[in-house]
Amino acid sequence: MSEIVASYLLHDNKGNFHKKAEGIALGLTVGSWTDLPLLDQQQLQKHKGRVVSVTELQDCERVNGYLGGEIKQAIVKIAYPTANFSKDLPAILVTVFGKLSLDGKVKLLDLDFPDELLAEFPGPRFGIEGIREKLGVYDRPLVMSIFKGVIGRDMTYLTTQLREQALGGVDLVKDDEILFDSERTPFEARVTEGKKVLNEVYEKTGHRTLYAVNLTGRTFELKEKARKAAELGADALLFNAFAYGLDVLQELREDDEINLPIMAHPAVSGALTPSEFYGFSNSLLLGKLLRLAGADFSLFPSPYGSVALSLEDTTGIAYELTRPVYKYKQSFPVPSAGIHPGMVPQLMKDFGIDSIINAGGGVHGHPDGAIGGGKAFRAAIDAVLSHQTLAEKAEESKELQKALELWGTVEVKA
Amino acid sequence: MSEIVASYLLHDNKGNFHKKAEGIALGLTVGSWTDLPLLDQQQLQKHKGRVVSVTELQDCERVNGYLGGEIKQAIVKIAYPTANFSKDLPAILVTVFGKLSLDGKVKLLDLDFPDELLAEFPGPRFGIEGIREKLGVYDRPLVMSIFKGVIGRDMTYLTTQLREQALGGVDLVKDDEILFDSERTPFEARVTEGKKVLNEVYEKTGHRTLYAVNLTGRTFELKEKARKAAELGADALLFNAFAYGLDVLQELREDDEINLPIMAHPAVSGALTPSEFYGFSNSLLLGKLLRLAGADFSLFPSPYGSVALSLEDTTGIAYELTRPVYKYKQSFPVPSAGIHPGMVPQLMKDFGIDSIINAGGGVHGHPDGAIGGGKAFRAAIDAVLSHQTLAEKAEESKELQKALELWGTVEVKA
Repeated sequence: MSEIVASYLLHDNKGNFHKKAEGIALGLTVGSWTDLPLLDQQQLQKHKGRVVSVTELQDCERVNGYLGGEIKQAIVKIAYPTANFSKDLPAILVTVFGKLSLDGKVKLLDLDFPDELLAEFPGPRFGIEGIREKLGVYDRPLVMSIFKGVIGRDMTYLTTQLREQALGGVDLVKDDEILFDSERTPFEARVTEGKKVLNEVYEKTGHRTLYAVNLTGRTFELKEKARKAAELGADALLFNAFAYGLDVLQELREDDEINLPIMAHPAVSGALTPSEFYGFSNSLLLGKLLRLAGADFSLFPSPYGSVALSLEDTTGIAYELTRPVYKYKQSFPVPSAGIHPGMVPQLMKDFGIDSIINAGGGVHGHPDGAIGGGKAFRAAIDAVLSHQTLAEKAEESKELQKALELWGTVEVKA
Repeated sequence: MSEIVASYLLHDNKGNFHKKAEGIALGLTVGSWTDLPLLDQQQLQKHKGRVVSVTELQDCERVNGYLGGEIKQAIVKIAYPTANFSKDLPAILVTVFGKLSLDGKVKLLDLDFPDELLAEFPGPRFGIEGIREKLGVYDRPLVMSIFKGVIGRDMTYLTTQLREQALGGVDLVKDDEILFDSERTPFEARVTEGKKVLNEVYEKTGHRTLYAVNLTGRTFELKEKARKAAELGADALLFNAFAYGLDVLQELREDDEINLPIMAHPAVSGALTPSEFYGFSNSLLLGKLLRLAGADFSLFPSPYGSVALSLEDTTGIAYELTRPVYKYKQSFPVPSAGIHPGMVPQLMKDFGIDSIINAGGGVHGHPDGAIGGGKAFRAAIDAVLSHQTLAEKAEESKELQKALELWGTVEVKA
């Protein structure tokens, strides 16, 4: 019998977790059991949920004080037969965390998919390998930068900013996730004029930059828009997956006429993950599920900025995006926010080669503008790869030198 | 200038909320301001976010202890020009709670839509009035019951359960939200065979019961499935809106070939609402936004059961579903879980006539089965409407009497 196993963190002031676990395993599958006639039990056996384990944790005084009383904690694992649901994420989420999400303090930490269920999901179309092939860059982290202050601006403003960023040597530029379709900067014009600018830069410098255009609008128009983007030669799509739904992401990934890498933005996901008591773990939502559904890139708050996740959370996300899972390709981890060139050694230590160094202010805020910012990042990466210190490298790169003067060098923590 | 105003609850240990609010208003719109040339300021004025108000709240010791330190709280209102986003919920959510949802302890309490933005949203197709017309019932709360223990069962089991429930006089029966499309109980068969059973009951008793079939599967197949259901004569759709996305709900509502009431189930919404620090308020998510997107019914945990919301939260949801808003129809509030006939006076006091009394165990667990359960609920409602006590009514209704013996009578709280 094939099962999906869900791991939950439960907080409860009674703490009878074994009984609670049995209640979940039955309540979310066959309903009742011991009262059933033997014949019914035989028929329903393959639909019955199962308690895999109940692990009680230490009390936490901080939580006791907050919730008032002795609050017990446990990690509970429940197996749900795959025979109970259709092979799509909405059905899986409703089964393992539908009604249960409303049932007191319960957080969904992880889902273990059996292989035959994994086979129903696509994983990334391009993945790390495919993106690297598009760029011809194999031996270093990629550098990405972000449009800044583009709301209310026109195409000239956008293309000028795009050109500057590309000239600095960044590998990817993404739209601002709050840039929607508008008369001044329509979706299709961003694709075609963006492409023109990036081709000009390529012809001039030999450096290829990919541009991820923000795919927005009504749900049932997304496929047509994305197909149009592909047809017009777009490089990649930015997608606010959590404002739509994970299954919408998967639908976009599975459409062969949308032959484009998809970059999942974490907008709105902060409503789902940060609570200690409720919602989803970051590694599950921004890691495992995004990859499963087909994101080639997952952006998430870096552990360094003012908008930060813990290092443990971010490396947990990166682990799920890149570890061997079934036949899926790897997704690029993109730790974002608070990144400047002086931080590159720490970033590369924490996230390795197969990650993306993504900066907004750290590119645009450079004394020489976005061109200087991009060059400083590329120099910092070269330094780490050639075992130089940033200070050493800054002697060759005036852009890196200026960046270090402005933002400083972050000492690498073990 | 048209604006949407978002109200947030912020927790912060520094507590410089005015500065934080300015940062949000600019950061989520034009980016920067004071550094901009005057010409740019003139051009961007109509895109600039605005701090409407900052209201600091009393410290909370419980929260201070939990988070460690003196944590300040404030309600902050920010206005975002509607010129900045396309007129769809994903764009609105990404604008007002995209990146911001990840930015520390911030909970989205409410959104005030200007009329011209409200005009872009459909609201319910039928609403309370339209549902009442379908049933010919105008003067009392409706009674709904839920299939129980149907996972792994066949059509005979389902139709038998449906018949029993209808014979008890309930107005609506909904699918279990964890019942997906399967070989044993396929979607279309549930519609056609369910209809047959309910027509038989109608011919026998003159009582009309509507059946809400669970619309499930991949996102881009939902419209076709729903159209097929409408064509086959379905009464209503149950929809796990939060496993898909609010915009998918709106798309279903707006499709004129899907001329069916939609019942939004709160599955998975518990990942979004219960935290004191993060996510959405219940009244916004399960009230205002579901109605705006077009749900005719909103199910939510009642304040009475073991899976409970506070009375304030539930009446807040009901208020948003029914208060006059633009030209929208009203949506039916459906407080669910832990409901038995002895609770009807309290329910009607808390939620009034224009609500739905929804029970699972309180119908199926009746000593005379679902028929007895339905009759007991109907008798309890009659009692309240005719200003009788339940005990008085139980002298006429043996089903109510048995229900009160089993579950007791809940004394009405002021």
